[in-house]
Amino acid sequence: MASIKDVAKLAGVGLGTASRAMSGKGYVSPETRRKIEWAAKELRYTPNILAQNLLKNKSGIIGILIPCLEHSFYSRLVQCLEADLYKKGYKSMIWCTISQNHGEQDYLDMLEKNLVDGIITATHSLNDESYLESGRVIAAFDREFQGEIPFVRSDHEEAGRLAAEHFRKNGCKKVLSIYGADTRDGRISTGQAHENLRRRLEREKIQVAEVCTDRERFDPPYYRRLAKECLEKYRDADGIFASDLLALEFLFQALRKGKKIPEELKIISYDGTEITRSVYPRMSAVVQDIDGISKALTDILIERIETGKVSESRILPVKWQEGETCS
Amino acid sequence: MASIKDVAKLAGVGLGTASRAMSGKGYVSPETRRKIEWAAKELRYTPNILAQNLLKNKSGIIGILIPCLEHSFYSRLVQCLEADLYKKGYKSMIWCTISQNHGEQDYLDMLEKNLVDGIITATHSLNDESYLESGRVIAAFDREFQGEIPFVRSDHEEAGRLAAEHFRKNGCKKVLSIYGADTRDGRISTGQAHENLRRRLEREKIQVAEVCTDRERFDPPYYRRLAKECLEKYRDADGIFASDLLALEFLFQALRKGKKIPEELKIISYDGTEITRSVYPRMSAVVQDIDGISKALTDILIERIETGKVSESRILPVKWQEGETCS
Repeated sequence: MASIKDVAKLAGVGLGTASRAMSGKGYVSPETRRKIEWAAKELRYTPNILAQNLLKNKSGIIGILIPCLEHSFYSRLVQCLEADLYKKGYKSMIWCTISQNHGEQDYLDMLEKNLVDGIITATHSLNDESYLESGRVIAAFDREFQGEIPFVRSDHEEAGRLAAEHFRKNGCKKVLSIYGADTRDGRISTGQAHENLRRRLEREKIQVAEVCTDRERFDPPYYRRLAKECLEKYRDADGIFASDLLALEFLFQALRKGKKIPEELKIISYDGTEITRSVYPRMSAVVQDIDGISKALTDILIERIETGKVSESRILPVKWQEGETCS
Repeated sequence: MASIKDVAKLAGVGLGTASRAMSGKGYVSPETRRKIEWAAKELRYTPNILAQNLLKNKSGIIGILIPCLEHSFYSRLVQCLEADLYKKGYKSMIWCTISQNHGEQDYLDMLEKNLVDGIITATHSLNDESYLESGRVIAAFDREFQGEIPFVRSDHEEAGRLAAEHFRKNGCKKVLSIYGADTRDGRISTGQAHENLRRRLEREKIQVAEVCTDRERFDPPYYRRLAKECLEKYRDADGIFASDLLALEFLFQALRKGKKIPEELKIISYDGTEITRSVYPRMSAVVQDIDGISKALTDILIERIETGKVSESRILPVKWQEGETCS
């Protein structure tokens, strides 16, 4: 393969001049540039990205950390982030951390070693310090750091309020609220939806049973088993509040048992991804604005990389989706 | 941040020696190595990955090209690939090409520029030559190249045979077979399932109507619209053969119309991802072995990278999944 040296030689210029012309850094006269470009073409010279990035101390790559790709919320979020980052001239390196021990720390190390220019993280297994020590070119989804890492999240309190209002309106007596293990220790802020739901229902004298999922389990076989166990254990529950895929398991298993939906069991899912609009009966849901979340995370991170400015964190509105599982 | 120069100075050795010790290339005496490692620790020196990879001409990163992450087959495949590659010491850079013009070519360029050590591709928008010219450290999913790029695919002929057998056994008179646009031009080999299905049904005097999806459309709103149009247009069809998410749209919309499943309409989905086992009624399906596909692609690519050996292509068996949409 031709090197930059060969290009310089064929163009009849010095190595420094050829290097300036190919990297676009520093002055090269238009005529000389044309000669160098011709020589590069002639020799089918391709610049080595690693060498270029070393020069610029920039990789043009953003790391995206998510726990799991088989989760309808995360797969949609990543799809949006990838497209938004691409529009801004960055490539994405997506990493699901669920299958990997120390995956998240490995990734932060890559930030320190300049392999990625910044990180958007939606995985939250480490403590605050690990992030704050790691160069800080990070935008966080759904986790509120103490330090100067900005975050983006949905208005979970409003999500809890919307769900509570619809359970109440439909005359529920006992609602089963299922939240993720990561929300319990405050690392992921979706827990606020479940907390607000509980507070509001208890104020109305509606019973609430809370179930916590296992840490880092998002796979359908686990959700199937959990829904089955809960339907056995909480036979008197007449309302379910859970994330989309888990709520679907409750719906399918309740239908299989011959339960009338929504007459005998009301279900509200949180996230409101596409599958909730496809399914029959259509799922009543609180919808997160995934496209907006993606745009906000991208804007915050790229502004930090390109101008050094640390943006304000953002909280995005949620909305109610009319469905047939809770009117 | 400390540089390798600072480390050499503090250790009292030459730059070349310090560099050899940190990169693990070339001889350094144990005593000198200890001094250098102490100095590196003392100065909190982190090697720059870009610089190291430039030295080794290796990035430790594998590119994974897929059309779309919101498709249950691809999201599961990527999740498996990521875990399998990680076990072999490689990180993944996942790229969905659907939102990007020229995305696939950009990625092949990255292979040429040493940013990734190899590529696993499940996206197929370019012609054979583009791949064959690009260094060839590629393992292809579901596309049979003319040249020396090995591929992995499922036994699609057997998938077509299994589906045909079950439609026939259930007394279907007219089967609607919906295939992807990419299969039509032979780029993706799943078309063989649909071809074999048609041949076998026609031999039994069972009518077959074929519908081709738009190119690179895998999103739920598109599938919803398509299923609706097909159910209107082919009112006399009593069998449906389609990919998982599209088959689910047919199921939900048929149920919504009050059709009895499977009495009035038999549905068989191809891929058999997790959602087909969750849904009620449970989907009758032909199942691709995604875990096996991931393992085969990983083995083929890593062997090529590490030993230079070009492996044989592999065709993996499919199996029938009992369900309630076609007995």
